[in-house]
Amino acid sequence: MVKKVLKFGGTSVGSIDRIQHVAKIIEKEHKNGNQVIVVVSAMSGKTNELLNLSQKISNNFSKRELDVLLSSGEQITSALLAGALINLNVKAKSYLNWQIPIITEGEHTNARIINIKTNEINEYLKKKGVAIIPGFQGISTNGDITTIGRGGSDASAVALAKIFKTDFCEIYTDVDGVFSSDPKKIPIAKKIDKISFDEMLELSSLGAKVMQSSAVQTAMIYDIPLEVKSTFTNREGTKIFGQDNIDYTKSVTGVAYSKDDAKITLIGVEDKPGVAANIFEPLNESQVNVDMVIQNISSDSRTTDVTFTIKRDDLLKTKDIFKKNNNINFEKITYNDNVAKLSIVGAGMVTTPGVTYKMFRALADEKINILAISTSEIKLSVIINEENILNAVKKLHTVFDLD
Amino acid sequence: MVKKVLKFGGTSVGSIDRIQHVAKIIEKEHKNGNQVIVVVSAMSGKTNELLNLSQKISNNFSKRELDVLLSSGEQITSALLAGALINLNVKAKSYLNWQIPIITEGEHTNARIINIKTNEINEYLKKKGVAIIPGFQGISTNGDITTIGRGGSDASAVALAKIFKTDFCEIYTDVDGVFSSDPKKIPIAKKIDKISFDEMLELSSLGAKVMQSSAVQTAMIYDIPLEVKSTFTNREGTKIFGQDNIDYTKSVTGVAYSKDDAKITLIGVEDKPGVAANIFEPLNESQVNVDMVIQNISSDSRTTDVTFTIKRDDLLKTKDIFKKNNNINFEKITYNDNVAKLSIVGAGMVTTPGVTYKMFRALADEKINILAISTSEIKLSVIINEENILNAVKKLHTVFDLD
Repeated sequence: MVKKVLKFGGTSVGSIDRIQHVAKIIEKEHKNGNQVIVVVSAMSGKTNELLNLSQKISNNFSKRELDVLLSSGEQITSALLAGALINLNVKAKSYLNWQIPIITEGEHTNARIINIKTNEINEYLKKKGVAIIPGFQGISTNGDITTIGRGGSDASAVALAKIFKTDFCEIYTDVDGVFSSDPKKIPIAKKIDKISFDEMLELSSLGAKVMQSSAVQTAMIYDIPLEVKSTFTNREGTKIFGQDNIDYTKSVTGVAYSKDDAKITLIGVEDKPGVAANIFEPLNESQVNVDMVIQNISSDSRTTDVTFTIKRDDLLKTKDIFKKNNNINFEKITYNDNVAKLSIVGAGMVTTPGVTYKMFRALADEKINILAISTSEIKLSVIINEENILNAVKKLHTVFDLD
Repeated sequence: MVKKVLKFGGTSVGSIDRIQHVAKIIEKEHKNGNQVIVVVSAMSGKTNELLNLSQKISNNFSKRELDVLLSSGEQITSALLAGALINLNVKAKSYLNWQIPIITEGEHTNARIINIKTNEINEYLKKKGVAIIPGFQGISTNGDITTIGRGGSDASAVALAKIFKTDFCEIYTDVDGVFSSDPKKIPIAKKIDKISFDEMLELSSLGAKVMQSSAVQTAMIYDIPLEVKSTFTNREGTKIFGQDNIDYTKSVTGVAYSKDDAKITLIGVEDKPGVAANIFEPLNESQVNVDMVIQNISSDSRTTDVTFTIKRDDLLKTKDIFKKNNNINFEKITYNDNVAKLSIVGAGMVTTPGVTYKMFRALADEKINILAISTSEIKLSVIINEENILNAVKKLHTVFDLD
């Protein structure tokens, strides 16, 4: 007997047929004698449908009421799935977050789970019941419904796995697992069997949307092994766990990319303490998310050049900030709104010499110009022109033996 | 300053435009300095949509989970309406039933409200906040979500009016009020300005679907005056209150009818104690709803004839019961599956001589045959062939001066 959290995403429960299919997956786990806690997302499209309703009223819809509104999506799935299980003669029960309760702190639409009461559900599991819990939500300490951000059902699953001390946390989705790159765009991309938390984090923050980053982060902190697998096949998924347990034969695990970026370079910025803060403070205040930041070595001792990337949608806003703000001194500003970020990720990179060179050589062979470079221990990112991105991903895939 | 419950039905909140329109009605009440508790139904079509989802899984879907599922409908409306009010700068907040709480007893899908905690909402009303409450639901004493039956939002509104001791309980709907007959079928039907609880009960149980009967019953017991009015016009609605306060100038208030009935007559039933119980017990067990029951005077001292009406859909089931059940002795059974019930309702009937005769004469003038008759203090019902029903309603309307 093992204790498991199974989490099913929106496409996995996107129709009644699919909910009945999910019920059969759970029935099998239950028949194997496992204690099962199930976390569900809203049926695919549902959250957007509800969000659209609120936006017809106001783009500044009350966040408290938005949480009440959106939480109904997972509530609906929970009831339908519990009903489907009962129909299969599996003892099951939906537990809404206030019934458990799952307590959160922080703002509406962006809360964090801080506590989950376990007694009643543990009793129910011992009596061979399956507990179905709506993901993505909780209640605040003063009893309001909260949600924990888009994709938050992953975070719910990991938090439940942690607090219920389960042996497994399985994330069921519509793909076979985590891929070396986006399989829809890069057909030669391959499913990764095992990956470390760090690599997964780099991959997911770079555009591999299989799992929500903050959930992976929590799993990493509390060392909760995850498995991402498909609801629709019986194949093994991708196991995600601590780096110590992974035997690396490859230096690079995956190639990630994000499009719709823009690059901004401030030339001739005064090189003295506090300048970087002056540059990024107004961006932060205007909620412009800054991704890569590269400060080149000063060409003289007095000034330096600062390059950073943002989402292309934020470019107009950003231009405006630099026009209006007199706190920032620079000689010239240049924009490129047609760039993409390309990254290779691998926990083995740091111990494998020549990875950096190999990447640059591969791009040079394809005559792809590199506009900026940034590195970390397990990641190497470059900014290139957007039109080259798919070509570059394929090339790196081959060069690093991921096909 | 008065304290009011305003209840808005499914069509009144059937779209975002309509929800915004409802928000303006509430805004006006709020600006007038009134304390307002709002009860909402699910957006029209929503409850059926959710019900259909459950039925795709099973026609015997878990009732506990059905309540979790269906309650999401009113939750959605509550959040949208609260958001719309906040957008109009009206202080407002959705209160889900578990947050209040509204406590119910009885079975899932058919619970009854037994208690409502008032402190927090009263505090909120005093601070000039509008409380938005999902109708049709509650929680059981052990913390499960319950619902109180289709149309139960009326019952929620009346229960809230009672427990919060409000001055008014206004039921907003898609018609101007209670009509002397169904205005869609009988164009000469007229809106009734004032009606007693008893009359309203007779009318609503006879097919005038403006308000749910059990809610009217509760209002009658606790003497809570109601007003049924249109969300979409500014016209006065129908005021419903105790008989003492109504000055009757007309003997008959309305003409009601129900179609899709079937009439069954058992001829030569043994006339001794316990026979009626023997007849109706198996019908009750099979959930066949018996409407009118007429026992004719025995033609001899030994046997009698019993006539009763049921919904036409239950006819096959009923025939079966009488075929199989040996406890019931009768000579012959006859069926008529093509009948309708026609009723005149009026608290003034009992004091006005000749109402009965006038009705029979009017039907005779139209050459409509009466198949059975049943009377109460404020109602006179007859069974006639279905094809004559609209003709009969119009005739009675004219005869009793309701046009």
